[in-house]
Amino acid sequence: MAENAHGTANIGVVGLAVMGSNLARNLASREGNTVAVFNRSYEKTETLLSEHPEAGFVASKTIEEFAASLSTPRTAIIMVKAGAGTDAVIDQLTQVFEPGDIIVDGGNALFTDTIRREKAVRETGIHFVGAGISGGEEGALNGPSIMPGGSAESYETLGPILSSIAAVAEGEPCVTHVGTDGAGHFVKMIHNGIEYADMQLIAEAYDLIRRGTGKSPAEIADVFAEWNTGELESYLIEITAEVLRQVDAETGQPLVDVILDQAGAKGTGAWTVQTALDLGIPVSGIAEAVFARSLSSKPAQRAAATDLPGPSDAWTVDDPETFIEDVRRALYASKIIAYSQGFDEIVAGAEQYGWNIRKGEIAKIWRGGCIIRAQFLNRITEAYVDDAGLVALVTAPYFRDAVAGAQDSWRRVVATAAHAGIPAPAFSSSLSYYDGLRADRLPAALVQGQRDFFGAHTYKRVDKEGTFHTLWSGDRSEISAVDTH
Amino acid sequence: MAENAHGTANIGVVGLAVMGSNLARNLASREGNTVAVFNRSYEKTETLLSEHPEAGFVASKTIEEFAASLSTPRTAIIMVKAGAGTDAVIDQLTQVFEPGDIIVDGGNALFTDTIRREKAVRETGIHFVGAGISGGEEGALNGPSIMPGGSAESYETLGPILSSIAAVAEGEPCVTHVGTDGAGHFVKMIHNGIEYADMQLIAEAYDLIRRGTGKSPAEIADVFAEWNTGELESYLIEITAEVLRQVDAETGQPLVDVILDQAGAKGTGAWTVQTALDLGIPVSGIAEAVFARSLSSKPAQRAAATDLPGPSDAWTVDDPETFIEDVRRALYASKIIAYSQGFDEIVAGAEQYGWNIRKGEIAKIWRGGCIIRAQFLNRITEAYVDDAGLVALVTAPYFRDAVAGAQDSWRRVVATAAHAGIPAPAFSSSLSYYDGLRADRLPAALVQGQRDFFGAHTYKRVDKEGTFHTLWSGDRSEISAVDTH
Repeated sequence: MAENAHGTANIGVVGLAVMGSNLARNLASREGNTVAVFNRSYEKTETLLSEHPEAGFVASKTIEEFAASLSTPRTAIIMVKAGAGTDAVIDQLTQVFEPGDIIVDGGNALFTDTIRREKAVRETGIHFVGAGISGGEEGALNGPSIMPGGSAESYETLGPILSSIAAVAEGEPCVTHVGTDGAGHFVKMIHNGIEYADMQLIAEAYDLIRRGTGKSPAEIADVFAEWNTGELESYLIEITAEVLRQVDAETGQPLVDVILDQAGAKGTGAWTVQTALDLGIPVSGIAEAVFARSLSSKPAQRAAATDLPGPSDAWTVDDPETFIEDVRRALYASKIIAYSQGFDEIVAGAEQYGWNIRKGEIAKIWRGGCIIRAQFLNRITEAYVDDAGLVALVTAPYFRDAVAGAQDSWRRVVATAAHAGIPAPAFSSSLSYYDGLRADRLPAALVQGQRDFFGAHTYKRVDKEGTFHTLWSGDRSEISAVDTH
Repeated sequence: MAENAHGTANIGVVGLAVMGSNLARNLASREGNTVAVFNRSYEKTETLLSEHPEAGFVASKTIEEFAASLSTPRTAIIMVKAGAGTDAVIDQLTQVFEPGDIIVDGGNALFTDTIRREKAVRETGIHFVGAGISGGEEGALNGPSIMPGGSAESYETLGPILSSIAAVAEGEPCVTHVGTDGAGHFVKMIHNGIEYADMQLIAEAYDLIRRGTGKSPAEIADVFAEWNTGELESYLIEITAEVLRQVDAETGQPLVDVILDQAGAKGTGAWTVQTALDLGIPVSGIAEAVFARSLSSKPAQRAAATDLPGPSDAWTVDDPETFIEDVRRALYASKIIAYSQGFDEIVAGAEQYGWNIRKGEIAKIWRGGCIIRAQFLNRITEAYVDDAGLVALVTAPYFRDAVAGAQDSWRRVVATAAHAGIPAPAFSSSLSYYDGLRADRLPAALVQGQRDFFGAHTYKRVDKEGTFHTLWSGDRSEISAVDTH
């Protein structure tokens, strides 16, 4: 134990790969911060020190020195690859930290791991904070969106430090205390899930416009740049225009035509869907986005399927401008559904794990620094300010009206994609979800009848309380039954 | 240890709730079997004995007596609720069984639990077999479809016993050794996932016909009964007709209109999707089916959404007969996709866990006893017999031709649902998957460009080996990079 240590640094960073180095530099650049740094191999530390003398880092060769270099309560942010490495660093830090000190995991941990770690570390009297940090390397350096969990007490110390380095949106730092233990990493996971859906929707919009109008990627870049001045304004729309405009120096072709069409994934999208399945929340838009990536990455199947027949009728778009406007509206409506589903999962997670998550604040801190940053998020904040008990985002007046205005276009686009043989899984799925949500009656009643028939799973009735079973293999009378749903 | 015991029973059943009692009665009814029974509380055993003296059960009050009542190698099937209860019974049996004996878990265990249990039990020299048993209470009594995993050695003893009680389809018993350790429960899980998709597709077909043609449930029962004479012939189509024809005695209404339209679920569908996400397999049809059930079971959201606007144009079906035939073909094509996705997951699971699963045999043992039993499964067996290395079921000649013949109808139905505001998530998703699979180029290339832009995730090129990154915030030249997919 480094007891009675009185170091000079008010914040430390452990793990000096690109994300950690950039975060440390960001911290050092803010007035009032002195930053201690530590890395398993000292070589990386030396490189950082020599490349950035202006940062005034306090470097240590051992974890004991690192602890001694921090003022109390000691606060250290771990920036190592999520997994076993995180547990190892936590073990080291709990050996040299004291009750009241704060360990922050700034990696992309699965929130259930964070819950487990927080519980274990709490027993030592040390605070453990899982903090989602979004914005990539550039965000880490210049201002990320930060989603810390952990105790409210730890946030008293941590809040001002994180506020000093976070992105700023409309004058407000993009950081808030999300909730206790794993709440921060949970919300970061949902952020990433929504990001998957948003990207897939944009990809479908591009594909439809390209195949429907024959416009070049550069021309479609202009379409996205134009969209970026309206209600779709967002970082992802902005960079889509940039990517589509890029020309490959080697071939002179649009870069997007040279890139292999097999999308990678790092797992947080899949986690979002797996967690939603545990929570019983339909996040079909996010799921379709994750599946679209995995489908793209099956070269053997795709090669075997290239001669599967397509539509017998040729597809022509009569009026390209009208079609593009239809696609724009379909994209906006589908995006509203993706966010509505993502916030449903936040609500369900908060209930399941006992977090008091202020949905409006989450939308606020996503306005800057992170990948899904957008003006649009202000509308989400407003919706939750107007109605804290809002049961589904899409039912808030603003979004309801937005979808009402977009839906004829949306329906035309989904129908067109089906007829033309163009895959639009996220557009289609979002529309099906919308029509399912608003349906007076769903054929789920038939499913319940089938389940009762083959498995005696019982059903409820619309006209009275209780649980019932029909004696299908007997005289087909109905009996009261024990609920076995 | 009940050493040197020489009991008279060749098979035992532990757990005498409905499924266990029925399985024990099924076993006892087959020539050559003498069945030992045991239940935690002896009361249930006594009831079974008194109600079924014809079975000649050998009953025991203690687990030691139960073991002593079995001839060696002792073979016992556990039929208790999946979870901690299963582990408790396994613990008891391993105390009283000897090396070479066989413990079978016939419950609905998660396959990863089965892998864990098999590994632990194997160390005692006792065989542990996770066996999926499908067909519900009725199947357990009269002939289920059985999917045993575990060692090949244990199947030498177990195979003849299970064959004696399994359903028979075209002269063959619906049981095969699926693969080692958890393979049987894995395949049972996929069976259930496919069942979810099949039921949802049928529900969507019913909903479209009802809303499109105004036919009554009884009239639609006739449609399904007619369909059951053709390529859709299956148990689920058959019972759909039965359910739709059922009239509620109390109200005189069709029962399907009296049943509350909130579908329950027991988790195996969600497991199938969660596992597929781990394996990187797109099972969008199954996922949409699981989500459709969870959406239906959100009464507060649905109540808030009933005034969300629908399509501005009224929907009319010009020719009901043509429309119904379109729906039938759409259902068949979508069903092929659901099975193709399910078998993809079997292939991926087999590879991941080192199982030698013969796909054609799986389709065969699903022809009888289980919920998805259908003639159609013979076509799947044939496809894998013709081409053992088939990379996707839908690319086999028979299924390729079937979809080719159905696709114009399929596209019309998906487009119609979109225009009419009728949720058809599984129909739509299956079509999107089909069009994605056969696409020459996917907009996944744009997604890779976006990922490289905001996260330096790198991309591959269509024209040469290697991994690349564009210096988006630099001079936008391309550099070789380390693959960070």
